[in-house]
Amino acid sequence: MEPSHEPTERTRVRRKPSRGSYEREVIDEILDRALICHVGFVDDGQPYVTPTIHARHGDTLYLHGSPSSRTLTALAGGAPCCITATLVDELVLARSARQHSLNYRSVMVLGNAREVTDPDEKQLAMRAVVDHIVPGRSDHVRGPDEKEAETTRIVALPIDEASAKLREGPPVDKREDHELPFWAGRLPLTVAPGTPIPEPELHGAEIPDHVRNWRRDSTV
Amino acid sequence: MEPSHEPTERTRVRRKPSRGSYEREVIDEILDRALICHVGFVDDGQPYVTPTIHARHGDTLYLHGSPSSRTLTALAGGAPCCITATLVDELVLARSARQHSLNYRSVMVLGNAREVTDPDEKQLAMRAVVDHIVPGRSDHVRGPDEKEAETTRIVALPIDEASAKLREGPPVDKREDHELPFWAGRLPLTVAPGTPIPEPELHGAEIPDHVRNWRRDSTV
Repeated sequence: MEPSHEPTERTRVRRKPSRGSYEREVIDEILDRALICHVGFVDDGQPYVTPTIHARHGDTLYLHGSPSSRTLTALAGGAPCCITATLVDELVLARSARQHSLNYRSVMVLGNAREVTDPDEKQLAMRAVVDHIVPGRSDHVRGPDEKEAETTRIVALPIDEASAKLREGPPVDKREDHELPFWAGRLPLTVAPGTPIPEPELHGAEIPDHVRNWRRDSTV
Repeated sequence: MEPSHEPTERTRVRRKPSRGSYEREVIDEILDRALICHVGFVDDGQPYVTPTIHARHGDTLYLHGSPSSRTLTALAGGAPCCITATLVDELVLARSARQHSLNYRSVMVLGNAREVTDPDEKQLAMRAVVDHIVPGRSDHVRGPDEKEAETTRIVALPIDEASAKLREGPPVDKREDHELPFWAGRLPLTVAPGTPIPEPELHGAEIPDHVRNWRRDSTV
């Protein structure tokens, strides 16, 4: 088991501290299950939040994209950033409007990214991104050639300053509201894969197991 | 149809401008379908990105939460913010690692929020939040009483400076990669509701239609 983090002043969960966690095991699971993350950076005092695919490898979070991406340019330049990944597990429906909520798990990673320039680490990161979307797929694709690696920008953020926050359990209505004639409960949500849509011109390729068996458990 | 926005220097989609849209119809649909959004704000030069439930009413985006929430406190104070909502529609699996992608739709709204203090607007916003999670549900719950409304902080952001960005369609492999023996195609994703988990002590309440028929179409 990974050692747990000590929260910093910036990652400590202030509101409802019982919902906070600094365990790497909890943090890693959320990062690995979330298909995408949202990256925040600041430009001229204005925050921007952009969705992107991420991949974790050990203690590092990788993002990839075009060298001309504004987000990656800011991050490669060492701008402070915040990467947040969120899973939604259940709708939480109470008898009172006020107590409606979602059961969710989210992770926030703060810090300063670095640009990855080492060719081996770039290959590793690009492989990790493919396997993040579809576990096991990187053995069944053509890997990036030198030119593709050169024209892909990769940035790496250490998972040093990170916290998880989550809600679980039933709705919490006031005692007197239990008498009300309204339905209350939870609605679990899952990501369900549909029927794969193959490309034309496939050469002898059946739908592979890594696509056929793709699952993201019981979470969005 | 709503008039389209003119993009500002801050919302114009620079990378792959063909993926950008400034049509209110497109923007509103994404905002309405996304269960949650990610809110970015800046504190002491550091960006923070937090997930939260939002609701659109006309030209306004509402967020709600505790008066002690750090995010809402910053937004209520007029700090510049960015609210981003994202739907993931399909995994895009190419023959080459580099061409892997996601089909997605996202909206970014920039601006300065205001705190909602008018009791009627607060009621409207709290109602909108319940109906955002489960359309039609606000008629089947106890609405917020005066104390609950007072102890809920609501902030409103006008949908003035906003842009959508999306990817759709198949993977785009290089011509010479079409000969490779790898499977390529798309995997559509849907949010599938599971079996509702009712609270104990319900008083004559069957699972209502708005819960039984809950759908979010073909998107995460």
